[in-house]
This record gives sequence, structure tokens and C-alpha cells, in this order.
Amino acid sequence: MQDGRDSESPWKASSDRQTEREAKRVAVLRTAARAFNETGYHNTSLDDIARRLNVTKPTIYYYVRNKEEILFECVRIGLEMLDEASNDVNGHGGSAYDELIVVMRKYAEIVTMDFGMCVIRVGEEPLTEESRRTLRSLKRGIDRKFRRLIERGIKEGSLAPCDPKIAAFTVAGALSWIARWYSPNGGLSAQDIAAQCIDLLMNGLGKGGPSGEVRPPA
Amino acid sequence: MQDGRDSESPWKASSDRQTEREAKRVAVLRTAARAFNETGYHNTSLDDIARRLNVTKPTIYYYVRNKEEILFECVRIGLEMLDEASNDVNGHGGSAYDELIVVMRKYAEIVTMDFGMCVIRVGEEPLTEESRRTLRSLKRGIDRKFRRLIERGIKEGSLAPCDPKIAAFTVAGALSWIARWYSPNGGLSAQDIAAQCIDLLMNGLGKGGPSGEVRPPA
Repeated sequence: MQDGRDSESPWKASSDRQTEREAKRVAVLRTAARAFNETGYHNTSLDDIARRLNVTKPTIYYYVRNKEEILFECVRIGLEMLDEASNDVNGHGGSAYDELIVVMRKYAEIVTMDFGMCVIRVGEEPLTEESRRTLRSLKRGIDRKFRRLIERGIKEGSLAPCDPKIAAFTVAGALSWIARWYSPNGGLSAQDIAAQCIDLLMNGLGKGGPSGEVRPPA
Repeated sequence: MQDGRDSESPWKASSDRQTEREAKRVAVLRTAARAFNETGYHNTSLDDIARRLNVTKPTIYYYVRNKEEILFECVRIGLEMLDEASNDVNGHGGSAYDELIVVMRKYAEIVTMDFGMCVIRVGEEPLTEESRRTLRSLKRGIDRKFRRLIERGIKEGSLAPCDPKIAAFTVAGALSWIARWYSPNGGLSAQDIAAQCIDLLMNGLGKGGPSGEVRPPA
């Protein structure tokens, strides 16, 4: 029953429609990311994604053009989340050591979430060269931030002298790998895993070792 | 010109033919692995692989049934190489600390080689569920060996007390990641990268850090 007020119109305001559409688009992407992570990109059809959302395939096409666009968006969102992990801490006056721990903790948590996990479990490999180039450029940006933070830590003496390139990749590799083996039903929370993995990366696995240092390659 | 001796027969002995066929099959697989690693599994056709080998596609079909079989074999061989990395050292009386370093060094070198790199860059994701199960079982075997070695190191006091599961994944993740970013033309040799990455994993990135230890998650 209408009582004449504008707010009672059966049609939503344009801005509300826009917001709702965007929320539904993200829901499609998130559901797709979860399906890709669980059963693989190539083993997931648009029908599978539609079924998980209780909608028909034409409804999916209202939000995305095809499966490739879905994967591109999932990986892009995941990479932007990883990229933003370092934005909150940069330049807040803390030591690089403390900042690195905060960034690593966020990174580890993001790769246990739908979009971040999709970056590692699926990634850009199935996409066209142009899409892969765009996503690889985002990856390079994340790597650059890790390197700068480590360079700063070495300079200020809070991090061990090392090659920042190799250190950044070592950290990113160990943390990214969590996405490969983490299971929400696995007994350990994402936070616990992150804390222990970071502890190992910062303090080393070889404490108290017989030689106390790594010997040069034979 | 024949002089009547058996060895001069224009047909090779059966065992020689078998050996030659196997060598050629491995050459097909290795060339395919390199192509997958460079341009992606889905962007590589059997024609591309044939072209790299200067043969025709029917020649490829003499050695393998299809692209899926090629990838399965590439990943299987890579995983068996990684699995064997720990066979030489196990039970030779060294400390777990020393053994772990030898195993890590081999692991890091294998993931910079064609088949090992294919395990990480492509992996089993594009394959059928049955193939993926077989390959995942090989992966679990490798992980189990890492965990046992780390458990032994903790017990004997040569490694820091930690959760062996998380430590094994941290090590495997950092080392596997090398396959993602390593380039033979990148200035650093696989051996140098391995040595520095292992140094970080064993001794930690945070030496001399302001707090000296990782703080608990906020």
C-alpha cells in the first residue's frame, strides 16, 4: 500500500540500485573464488557458480561477461588487498622490524581468505597475456614494497644484513604457501599459523644449531 | 656397406631402441615443461611443443597420448626428484640440522630446473581429479619427510622448538617460491639464491631486531 511518500516507491533510488548491484557482483566473484579454490579453475563452470548462489546462469551474466573476467577480478581484488596490507603501517614512525611483522601478519591472513587464496591457488596463469601482464604488474608493486621495507630495516639495523630481493621473496613465498595448505577446518586458526610462520621467518629455524650458521654450499 | 657383423645391422637391438625411445620421450616432456613454465600450460599447444623439437605433432603422439599426460608426467617426475632430494642424506648419521640444509639446497636447485619448476609454476590444478589425487599423495610424502627431519632436529636440540607442520610448510613455501621468480638470466645463480634463502630460514631475518623476538598477535 502506497501512502504517497517518495521513500515508499516500489523502485529503489538509483544510488541504492548501484550499491546493491555492486554487492551482488562481489558476491558472485567471492563465490567463484571459493569454488576455484576448492575444486580448481578448470573444474568449475559458470553453472557450478550459479548453483552455489541459487541463481541461473543468465543472472551471472548480468554481473560478469565470462569466466575469464571472473578470475581476473578475483586475482585483481586479492592482489589489491595484499598491496593495501602495507599501506596502513608505512610511514607511521615504527621500526621497519615492527612494520614488517604487521604487514606479514595481514598478508598471511589475506591469503587464507577467498580472494587472496585465489591469487595463490589459481593465479593469473589461465588468463590472456594482456591480463597476465596487468596482474604481474600489481605483483611487482607488492614485491617492491616488501623490498623497500626490508632495505629500511637493514639500514636502521633492525633486520639482518641480507639481499632484500631474496629476503622479500623468501617471506612472500613462506606466507603465500599458507594459501596452499590452509584449511578452515584444520585445527589451527589463520592467526596462529601466521604468528608461528612469522616467528620462524624472523628468528630462524636453526637456533641452537650445532654450527650456529649455515655452511657455504659444498 | 654391411660386413656381416650383427652390430652393423641397420636395425638397432631391441634394448637400444627401448633406451632411445625413453630418451626421446623424456626430451618431449622436458621441452613441454620448459614451454609450460615460460608461457603457461593453457597457452602452450602440442604444435608449439613439436615446433620447439623440430618434429611434427604425430611424432609427439608416438611418445605421449595428449597434453594432460604430458603435464601429469612433468609434475610426477618433478615431485619424484623433490622426494629423492632427501633420500641421499637420511640416516647417514649427520645431525638433522646438517641434513636439513643438504635437503633444502637440493630442493631449491630442483625447483629451478624444468620438471621441478613445472611442479610449482603449473602444478596439478589443470588435471583430472584422479591425477590430482595421485600427485597430491606424492606431495604429502615429501611434506612428511620434511616434518620428520624437523621433528628429529627439535628432539636432538639442533633446531628451534616449533610446530614441525608449520616449519615444514614455511621451508617448502620459501624454497618453492624460488621457482616462481627465478630466471636463468637474472644475475644470481640457483646455488647463490638457495644459499641465501636457506641462511634466512635457518638464522632468521630479524637478528638484532629491537625486541629480539616476535610479539604475539595484537
